Amino acid sequence: MSTFWSPAIRSLTPYTPGEQPRIDGLIKLNTNENPYPPAPAVQQVIATFDAERLRLYPDPECRSLKQALANTQGLQPRQVFVGNGSDEVLALAFMAFLRQDQPVLLPQISYSFYNVYLELFGIEARHIPLRADFSINLDDYQERNGGIIFANPNAPTGIAIPLGEIRRLLERNRESVVIVDEAYVDFGAESATALVNEFPNLLVSQTFSKSRSLAGMRVGFAYGQAELIEGLERVKNSFNSYPLDMLAQRVAIAALEDRAYFDRRCRQIIATREWSTAQLTALGFEVLPSHANFLFASHPNVAGAELMQHLREQRILVRHFPQPGIDNHLRITVGTDEQMRALLDCLARHPAL
Amino acid sequence: MSTFWSPAIRSLTPYTPGEQPRIDGLIKLNTNENPYPPAPAVQQVIATFDAERLRLYPDPECRSLKQALANTQGLQPRQVFVGNGSDEVLALAFMAFLRQDQPVLLPQISYSFYNVYLELFGIEARHIPLRADFSINLDDYQERNGGIIFANPNAPTGIAIPLGEIRRLLERNRESVVIVDEAYVDFGAESATALVNEFPNLLVSQTFSKSRSLAGMRVGFAYGQAELIEGLERVKNSFNSYPLDMLAQRVAIAALEDRAYFDRRCRQIIATREWSTAQLTALGFEVLPSHANFLFASHPNVAGAELMQHLREQRILVRHFPQPGIDNHLRITVGTDEQMRALLDCLARHPAL
Repeated sequence: MSTFWSPAIRSLTPYTPGEQPRIDGLIKLNTNENPYPPAPAVQQVIATFDAERLRLYPDPECRSLKQALANTQGLQPRQVFVGNGSDEVLALAFMAFLRQDQPVLLPQISYSFYNVYLELFGIEARHIPLRADFSINLDDYQERNGGIIFANPNAPTGIAIPLGEIRRLLERNRESVVIVDEAYVDFGAESATALVNEFPNLLVSQTFSKSRSLAGMRVGFAYGQAELIEGLERVKNSFNSYPLDMLAQRVAIAALEDRAYFDRRCRQIIATREWSTAQLTALGFEVLPSHANFLFASHPNVAGAELMQHLREQRILVRHFPQPGIDNHLRITVGTDEQMRALLDCLARHPAL
Repeated sequence: MSTFWSPAIRSLTPYTPGEQPRIDGLIKLNTNENPYPPAPAVQQVIATFDAERLRLYPDPECRSLKQALANTQGLQPRQVFVGNGSDEVLALAFMAFLRQDQPVLLPQISYSFYNVYLELFGIEARHIPLRADFSINLDDYQERNGGIIFANPNAPTGIAIPLGEIRRLLERNRESVVIVDEAYVDFGAESATALVNEFPNLLVSQTFSKSRSLAGMRVGFAYGQAELIEGLERVKNSFNSYPLDMLAQRVAIAALEDRAYFDRRCRQIIATREWSTAQLTALGFEVLPSHANFLFASHPNVAGAELMQHLREQRILVRHFPQPGIDNHLRITVGTDEQMRALLDCLARHPAL
């Protein structure tokens, strides 16, 4: 702690991302990365990129990428925002929309970065408990608020909210912005993007990091009506005019164009997820019903922290959150079938299972 | 304007970057881009990059890049911060250090993004006039303050401050952070990096965009003592954990390693700058003494806005700031000799010159 720090940052608790160890031979199921490479066109775009172009600034408005994203949804480019990963998109959205007089409503258990943004921007919030089955009950989000944010599917539970429930929330909550964080939506949940033209207060954020296998490239985006997107652009252009480099813009477009590859990889991960859920259940685990590329599971006989340690000794990384209510669970990224078999074999060797 | 926007952003005036038109055959001297390509190793790094790696997150701490940057200055990696262009580094530094009870001191004429940050973060400021010759007089920065920021060389004047004057400022201003924005320092000014180990309140920001020809790749960095850097990391990790993608980190390291190429290109730009200054002077321009990769010039017979329009009609872009005190000047990026000859020929054809 330094006397030179702004008073507001002295008490900050920054977000802790999952470990990124540089050790060969690890089975890395701890940060929800995609086990498959990005679409083949990505390699092509990079290999043929003319580095001389890098002397120039990239397009600050990312027009080609916005057009490509708009096309996938039948929306207009001015209904699309892009940023340096969906974390940046969310940070800018907190600044743009959630600094209001009323508290923000969000699930008690959700993506933990939301709480960091609340602290960073000095925003009051009310955390709404989940149901006993760990699902989000949007009927509990009724009080006056300065905005609502939740992840769908939720993190780290993986449980999805049906689109009808999101629509009902939007029908009764018309005065404040509702942010639906769909980082994991492509693995089987229903996207709220279909509601963008109906509700001027809906912002839907997504990312290339998970379903498009581009975590290393940092591209996130959001859909909303033009007035909301304009608010985001104002904040972005007051913070950093050029958050997406030239290669990131081109690579994202290439990944978006190969729809068949994307569909195939998502189906593959869903199949592995369903098979892994059955296997874990057979080992006595309680596995929440996931629509994401990860599983959230606990075992009645062994604590989550102990299982994490047991896996780690066999060079298998999973994530454990030491937080009340979920501290007996493991969050396990869905890897390849081979990786999941190694995980299941290792768990089965635990003496208490 | 939307009722959904946070009240604080409704009155924001975002930064306006220079135009990035997509028209072939332009002579683009309006955004201080380097006319030469990045070091040859950059092309090599990109062409041989294995796209499969992009499925993983990049190193959030950018350890290899920080080590490489530290090595160039004989500093430690924990004295180095990296971000998504120096604009992001500066935005985070405003949050981390300048939100204090006292006003921030900065030059009345300087990089206009500073005023946007002040507004975005609600920071009070006092703008200190330049001397009549457009230079910064640091002896005027004496009052109690919540921080001091200036660019060296200053933008858009190009005028550099001798290191001895910065040292004197630091010796008498020990209670608040002093940020020296050295985006253009490599074109002949003295860097304050040499003072980092002496002054715990000094932060020096630099960029790969100008002297390393990597504007398209978005990499900025800062040097400071470990406690200051830790403050920046806290804010960064409360905003966006992974602002630098994998390729940006590798490309920056490659550009840094080719010192000979860097030196040669900087010398080339300095030589062109000095020649162009002489030629403009011969045409009757008053040209401020520049240590940057741009010139700031005015002509007694013709208004700046008119000259900009005259050049634009010949497809030559320069920048004009409609701001009291400098609205008769043009900011002209130093391009290749050929580009500067085209500019000079075009100016010479103006009837009033």
